[in-house]
Amino acid sequence: MNWHYLQPVTIHFGNGMIACLKDEIRRLGGTRGLLVTSPSLEKNGLAARLVADNEKTLQTVYSRVSPNPDVSQCDACAGLIRQNGCDFVLAVGGGSVLDCAKAAAAFCTAAAPASEYLEKKRPLPEAHLPLIAVPTTAGTGSEITRVAVLSDHQKGLKAPLNTPVFYPATAIVDPELTYTVPKHVTACTGMDVLCHAIEAYWNIHHQPVCDALAIHAARLVFRHLETACEEPENALAREKMAEASVTAGLAFALPGTAAAHACSYPLTSNLGIPHGEACGLTIDHFMRINAEKDTDGRLRELAFATGFDNACSMADAISELKYRTGLKTSLAGYDLTDDQLEKLVQASLHPNLQNNPVPITEAMLRDLYRDLR
Amino acid sequence: MNWHYLQPVTIHFGNGMIACLKDEIRRLGGTRGLLVTSPSLEKNGLAARLVADNEKTLQTVYSRVSPNPDVSQCDACAGLIRQNGCDFVLAVGGGSVLDCAKAAAAFCTAAAPASEYLEKKRPLPEAHLPLIAVPTTAGTGSEITRVAVLSDHQKGLKAPLNTPVFYPATAIVDPELTYTVPKHVTACTGMDVLCHAIEAYWNIHHQPVCDALAIHAARLVFRHLETACEEPENALAREKMAEASVTAGLAFALPGTAAAHACSYPLTSNLGIPHGEACGLTIDHFMRINAEKDTDGRLRELAFATGFDNACSMADAISELKYRTGLKTSLAGYDLTDDQLEKLVQASLHPNLQNNPVPITEAMLRDLYRDLR
Ligand SMILES: [Zn+2]
Ligand SMILES: [Zn+2]
Repeated sequence: MNWHYLQPVTIHFGNGMIACLKDEIRRLGGTRGLLVTSPSLEKNGLAARLVADNEKTLQTVYSRVSPNPDVSQCDACAGLIRQNGCDFVLAVGGGSVLDCAKAAAAFCTAAAPASEYLEKKRPLPEAHLPLIAVPTTAGTGSEITRVAVLSDHQKGLKAPLNTPVFYPATAIVDPELTYTVPKHVTACTGMDVLCHAIEAYWNIHHQPVCDALAIHAARLVFRHLETACEEPENALAREKMAEASVTAGLAFALPGTAAAHACSYPLTSNLGIPHGEACGLTIDHFMRINAEKDTDGRLRELAFATGFDNACSMADAISELKYRTGLKTSLAGYDLTDDQLEKLVQASLHPNLQNNPVPITEAMLRDLYRDLR
Repeated sequence: MNWHYLQPVTIHFGNGMIACLKDEIRRLGGTRGLLVTSPSLEKNGLAARLVADNEKTLQTVYSRVSPNPDVSQCDACAGLIRQNGCDFVLAVGGGSVLDCAKAAAAFCTAAAPASEYLEKKRPLPEAHLPLIAVPTTAGTGSEITRVAVLSDHQKGLKAPLNTPVFYPATAIVDPELTYTVPKHVTACTGMDVLCHAIEAYWNIHHQPVCDALAIHAARLVFRHLETACEEPENALAREKMAEASVTAGLAFALPGTAAAHACSYPLTSNLGIPHGEACGLTIDHFMRINAEKDTDGRLRELAFATGFDNACSMADAISELKYRTGLKTSLAGYDLTDDQLEKLVQASLHPNLQNNPVPITEAMLRDLYRDLR
């Protein structure tokens, strides 16, 4: 079996690790930075604190990144970078903030609008400013991947862009920054972590380094997610979920995700279900499908390694975990029409579906969504 | 718990992967390279094959690297690089070749002799040529670490040098290159892999990413080392041992090794025992010592995760593995005098000894060596 591995992002992990920001800016030679963040982090004072702590190097702030970040937000960031002659970018927030900043740190090196990259009208830039990524949720793993998911809401477009240029220079993962994340967001982002780990592992592009990290991350989610939801300041649970998020990020960064993520995209865009919750809706169903054709025994090994007797018990534990953390276990509340259901099926035929170890047909998707309805 | 991670080496792994060498040289912009290798690989034709396959870019060869490479060999390589205006280095061989080449690729950028760096008379260079590392044994993991162990035989010095400048640009790990490794070398290098994994895991500098990779590597050694020794062309066993070597390399690259490696240095230099065999001599003994004070249960978790009921069973399995692969399980053959034994004790007080989770005293070392005698 052939495989390839690269992980060029420097990771600093630990409670209070945000204090190393100043050193990291100095190490990267940054003199004037753009801070990219979200309205809630501006409101809770974190953005102001970072600006105050780094007053010489952080003077420009963009704090309007929304969930499913829009190309116009990337353009606004790139514009601020150019106007202020910034030489580095600091992203502090969830996956949306990180993705927007990753794109802006590269797009600012050329004059083209972000929409042209999203529509594949021009090749992605080869230059970029150094980016320091500071996640404030334990979820996307975007701080160590080379992917940014952008939307053009005007044109109804949403797609991942993927280039080595998007790798952050540094990820600072400080579990204490996640203490204020509300219960439901903790549950959603935690389920996203579990899906990253599982879909990295059973991905047709699986490889040993990522396998080992996927097992590590999945174990942690089963052990700590419920506590992180119930006790938001439980230091151990928050730390272990942050650890799970970054190790699951390392796990899926190269193989990518698979069928549950493919289905999550229309579940989010058509029904407004948050990303992690949308992934979690189908992951246990795909696990049962994959367990039936586990010819190489890899899925059974994953179940063993994460503490279960077999893949079916592991799937049951996921269903149970969703229930206990208040995540949707069905689409019952949506009263889906046949037409809406068919639209979900069609829109789930996303390239990532092909990464599932068992081929997933339209008919299988239809059955799955009918079961969920 | 705070931790840091970085793994900047691009890894290409798989049977026949050496064929990607040409592409890799092109990607790195190499036009004129120095091939560093050992007499045995020159003799078996591998060096000549690589030169023939890359005739435009590989014209200079240094093939005299010996076990425990000497500073004079680094100087010879650095001299060839300068004389021929080389812009990259290709290292093909075991750990000694890789270490010599890593040092030469950096030392060539300044005019000072290697001995001055080994004696810490001057800071290590900050510049270096890109290096492609191709291991031909499944052992040291040197292809992905930032350490080079050099000797000055004239002055009786041997020490590791450690700098980010030593990271290879690329590691090409091709299990087929290990098919010709003799049985005893396979056993020694495989035991080295197991010690890297275990000592990375229980290291006081342990961290989660490396833990996950250590578990992965240790499992593989228990499953595949004996077969790799018995059936040198067993594709699965050779592939899995190569995988174990590189993942164990990733595991110990940051935490470092611990007590078994500390003891291995005098066992090698005073008694001539090969590196991996020397590490293996004490690793099960340290496992029993550490198991008695496993207050955080980490060692028990390692044992579970690698398929054992507890750390004592795991230690027994290591003793058994040494026996079955023909590695020394004692120092009985050496008729050590008290004086020689005391010298081993003193020379084992190496900094890596401090990385053991349980403090190791001189008295404990004395008892251990007496048991082995
Ligand atoms: Zn996701
Ligand atoms: Zn070693």
